[in-house]
Amino acid sequence: MGGDHGPSVVIPGAALALERHPDSEFLIFGNESEVGPLLAAHPKLAAASRLIHTEIAIAMHDKPSQALRKGRWKSSMWLAIDAVKKGDADVAVSAGNTGALMAMSRFHLHMLPGVKNPAIAALWPTLRGESVVLDVGASIGADAQHLANLAVMGGAMARVLFDLERPTVGLLNIGVEEVKGLDQIREAGKLLRELDLKEIDYVGFVEGDDIGQGKVDVVVTEGFTGNIALKTAEGTARQMATLLRSAMGRTLRARIGYLFARRAFAVLREKMDPGKVNGGVLLGLTGVVIKSHGGTDSDGFAAAVDMGYDMARYGLLEKINQTLRRPISDELGTARIAEAVS
Amino acid sequence: MGGDHGPSVVIPGAALALERHPDSEFLIFGNESEVGPLLAAHPKLAAASRLIHTEIAIAMHDKPSQALRKGRWKSSMWLAIDAVKKGDADVAVSAGNTGALMAMSRFHLHMLPGVKNPAIAALWPTLRGESVVLDVGASIGADAQHLANLAVMGGAMARVLFDLERPTVGLLNIGVEEVKGLDQIREAGKLLRELDLKEIDYVGFVEGDDIGQGKVDVVVTEGFTGNIALKTAEGTARQMATLLRSAMGRTLRARIGYLFARRAFAVLREKMDPGKVNGGVLLGLTGVVIKSHGGTDSDGFAAAVDMGYDMARYGLLEKINQTLRRPISDELGTARIAEAVS
Repeated sequence: MGGDHGPSVVIPGAALALERHPDSEFLIFGNESEVGPLLAAHPKLAAASRLIHTEIAIAMHDKPSQALRKGRWKSSMWLAIDAVKKGDADVAVSAGNTGALMAMSRFHLHMLPGVKNPAIAALWPTLRGESVVLDVGASIGADAQHLANLAVMGGAMARVLFDLERPTVGLLNIGVEEVKGLDQIREAGKLLRELDLKEIDYVGFVEGDDIGQGKVDVVVTEGFTGNIALKTAEGTARQMATLLRSAMGRTLRARIGYLFARRAFAVLREKMDPGKVNGGVLLGLTGVVIKSHGGTDSDGFAAAVDMGYDMARYGLLEKINQTLRRPISDELGTARIAEAVS
Repeated sequence: MGGDHGPSVVIPGAALALERHPDSEFLIFGNESEVGPLLAAHPKLAAASRLIHTEIAIAMHDKPSQALRKGRWKSSMWLAIDAVKKGDADVAVSAGNTGALMAMSRFHLHMLPGVKNPAIAALWPTLRGESVVLDVGASIGADAQHLANLAVMGGAMARVLFDLERPTVGLLNIGVEEVKGLDQIREAGKLLRELDLKEIDYVGFVEGDDIGQGKVDVVVTEGFTGNIALKTAEGTARQMATLLRSAMGRTLRARIGYLFARRAFAVLREKMDPGKVNGGVLLGLTGVVIKSHGGTDSDGFAAAVDMGYDMARYGLLEKINQTLRRPISDELGTARIAEAVS
């Protein structure tokens, strides 16, 4: 029911994702009177789905606390998360209210042992392909241990998505000489060097302009900075697209040029299209929850479902736990990173 | 002597700036054997300049503390700042080591009364024109009062540069519902509303994607986030330019299209050219110091000199002091903002 366009985007999006992954099954939580007719228009999806009716939906403007009060036990969002908790679903995908999704997921799924705060990881288009950037806004501030946890979780996500043995990881920092970055970032760097994890290759600090160049597979930062960076990049891309469009329409020559180069522009648009890499992954929870952009179209929503499919199919949670819980005994494992900082 | 290219960029840059502002006079600090021949090639500049010889120059990789030890009293950078301190110059412009420039300026010029930390303000190209963004990396972290001071200083800069009576000012924040931003940002917002300064129009929080849209004339944030945002935007612009170039060369049709639209692309490049808006202003000091990008060309360096010219010509410092030191008596004035937060 979530997102700016609700089921009219979610249902065609799920249908698209099903075509790409015909072994998927869907549990669809929402208002039958709205969802039913849309589902009927997609018979293949209807055959692979179960529609669970609920009349309660979290609104996009609900505060997390309101959402929990009004939507616990019965809203479509809660029921989707609950399906993950119960093991009925491998992953929950929502285009709804981010704050509410975060709060409900945290409340119902709980955090992984050793992880204090949740994170949202985004896929960032780069010159080399894509990178994982986290946290893009789930929690403000991070001590060295949380940054190390983010590195581990982002690394697991990169292993799943990019099929890498040992993705490269950088800590986002500023390079100006007189300010050598925040203490906790330096500490996290030291910690990651000492741990020398076999699952991730920590390469050091990266700066803002390294993200788009694809210098590392995983960029780690706390949620405030990550959110500002992500939105600033989105804004800059949009700004340049606007300037390009206006430059291309300004003169007859430019318009003729545009006609000739139309296909090239289409390629460019494709590479910059945020819809193509839609889907933030809520990390640090005991289940997989994907947040789609609220304003996305069905292509974008399908991309978010695809991402969820990959995360479930290739064992994101197992990969995270594998690293967080090493060495050997589970009891010792979770304390290992925590000890190394203190 | 500073920057990646030293006098070979600085001297032609100054010559360009002089053409645009024929009433300028230059004090040029550097090694005569290097600067002299270059200056001789620009007779108009030579006629409007005095070359002060020094053999000591701060290297780009010197740490601020090293720079102060080695360069105090005698380096070209120090002498330029000293000329501002003595009133021999209205503004110092350097393409040299940012950290050293910051440290020396702070050490020698001191902070304005009521301002604890220096800031660097950048001009950011937007869809509406340009905005002032600060702090882009001079100091990490900011309490509510420092953020309010940044708003005042950035506002003064916008009044000078954009010739506005009352520029709009926004505090950079994140909009995700479950995290309502940092306490100090909320406090600064409250403070700015209460102060209701006649020189700036505080409009509230802005997000990362609002910067490039030009939603406000002045975007205020602390130095860590500001530096990440600036570099992320630069990286994204470079990334898109690379993608565009490669898309335009991919097929014959695209190359033909490029030929037709060449002029339009030139317009676009111009609008995105960081050189055109080169020049960070060091704010919070008792004198005007401009930092040019180290890697800039002579056009870019000329833009930095132009900015310095405007700052001196249209009274940046007076405009800052006017606001910081109100109401009426100087003694009361500086404490005014401080009191309002406590």
